[in-house]
Amino acid sequence: MTPSTSTFSARLNAAAKLVEANLEALLADNARHGEIARPARLMAAMRHAVLGGGKRLRPFLTIEAARLFGFEGQGALRAGSAVELLHCYSLVHDDLPSMDDDDLRRGRPTVHRAYDEATAILAGDALQTLAFEVLADAETDADPAVRADLVLGLARAAGLGGMVGGQMLDLSAEGRYGDGAVSMGEAGVRQLQMMKTGAILAFSVEAGAILGRADAGARRSLVEYGRALGAAFQVADDILDREASAEALGKRTGKDQEKGKATLVDLLGLEGAKGECRQLVERADAALGGFGDRARILRDAVRFVVEREV
Amino acid sequence: MTPSTSTFSARLNAAAKLVEANLEALLADNARHGEIARPARLMAAMRHAVLGGGKRLRPFLTIEAARLFGFEGQGALRAGSAVELLHCYSLVHDDLPSMDDDDLRRGRPTVHRAYDEATAILAGDALQTLAFEVLADAETDADPAVRADLVLGLARAAGLGGMVGGQMLDLSAEGRYGDGAVSMGEAGVRQLQMMKTGAILAFSVEAGAILGRADAGARRSLVEYGRALGAAFQVADDILDREASAEALGKRTGKDQEKGKATLVDLLGLEGAKGECRQLVERADAALGGFGDRARILRDAVRFVVEREV
Repeated sequence: MTPSTSTFSARLNAAAKLVEANLEALLADNARHGEIARPARLMAAMRHAVLGGGKRLRPFLTIEAARLFGFEGQGALRAGSAVELLHCYSLVHDDLPSMDDDDLRRGRPTVHRAYDEATAILAGDALQTLAFEVLADAETDADPAVRADLVLGLARAAGLGGMVGGQMLDLSAEGRYGDGAVSMGEAGVRQLQMMKTGAILAFSVEAGAILGRADAGARRSLVEYGRALGAAFQVADDILDREASAEALGKRTGKDQEKGKATLVDLLGLEGAKGECRQLVERADAALGGFGDRARILRDAVRFVVEREV
Repeated sequence: MTPSTSTFSARLNAAAKLVEANLEALLADNARHGEIARPARLMAAMRHAVLGGGKRLRPFLTIEAARLFGFEGQGALRAGSAVELLHCYSLVHDDLPSMDDDDLRRGRPTVHRAYDEATAILAGDALQTLAFEVLADAETDADPAVRADLVLGLARAAGLGGMVGGQMLDLSAEGRYGDGAVSMGEAGVRQLQMMKTGAILAFSVEAGAILGRADAGARRSLVEYGRALGAAFQVADDILDREASAEALGKRTGKDQEKGKATLVDLLGLEGAKGECRQLVERADAALGGFGDRARILRDAVRFVVEREV
């Protein structure tokens, strides 16, 4: 382990602990200002969906991107937690019987298995709402322009033209709505992945630039970095899905093959996909060129994303 | 028909046309700024969920509440449309097989019947996201403090302590998670209804006050009016569910009785419930006392809510 990766792991783990504590506080049982009551079953299902695991990569990116601009406040923790809530909602709904029909997530029963389908749908719905509530709250940033910008960015990344649209394309790619799996081609697969996974990862980074009052040029650089990281994440995921065991991932593997969905590994080959990962790491590095050594932790982050084993 | 109700109907219908056109524009097929692509199947399901019907009561309340403060801009139409998108998402998810399992909505197949369950879940998810996107967009109001306030208000009304929490309590009241239907008592039923339906209706009104830069006292009055209207809406709904035919409502009736859920009609009797409606109309009127004749259309609105036949 190089000194750099050791520092990286320590900071990733430290951030994860702060995020976990913040998420626990957000998902407490007692009702808050403006709320009538918090139903116990709903809260338990939401906590099951969110707490007790995960690398918390998205909040980490928000916190570290904000730090690049000298922003060290609680706002980055809160905004990152909001992105994590949004991410967790998407996992709960993706796992549902009518979607990917998964029984395990992070080695534990999925929410609809631990509770029931209706509760899982509602828990996901409320997690999405809570993500926007956290961003719009003055506790996240005193400047309402920053809060409105965060909400707008997350909504665009998460909605019909981003994450949810990507999940729709993914279901279509299984051939559910036609005769057999739809052949998407490389451009189609890349678009699907950018929508389903990349957009939220890129926003995690952009959120830090927004909080850090980055100028337009610096913000564009961070978005470019975030897109490269998002793409790298997905190619690495395709490679992992082909190579890793279910035990290590804590979920079923080889699912895409089962469903006849093309991944970048199919289209580029395993070595081609690994080469693409290396190129994306270079693209991410290049985007951070103007920040010099201050951006080292973000450069480490993209390497972590492509080298992770789970 | 008195002159007042004739004016009211004309304004309600005129607003509904503007809202329909605005919703159509928001749900067009072509991708917008910040979006990668809009999948055709998802857009079709979202349009099915939103367009072609409905009284558009919530946007009407936003528009008329804003007008009470002299605010006539497009922002009220957009904010009202956002509330309508949120409302429509909740209907799509409530209709799902694992929730209320409804085949009809406004006399047409529900989204999961017209498409499929996965598409319906995603369409609902994306409608919720779009609601927050519309509110956070600078087109809704030039002042980011207003936009952040709108997002925060909608999130609190829609989430775990409001609408979604209310739906969770409603499912619990069916006795799904215990032995038979849960006896909630009058306070419990009122709380459930305030969460499930009342909070969003109250926010529809409050959104107009936010856009109209109402001072704290005037905003409180509008919220109090909105709460009375929301409660009246739900009691009227319970009465309709008992009295009206499925044909007139375009959906199944008597469902609450089938499921053993207590409504205010059970608890207060039919005449008692009608008396409560009258009291709520008085409470709504009283809340608007300070606005004099300018608030006539909002006074008409609460009467419309309790006297409607569908």
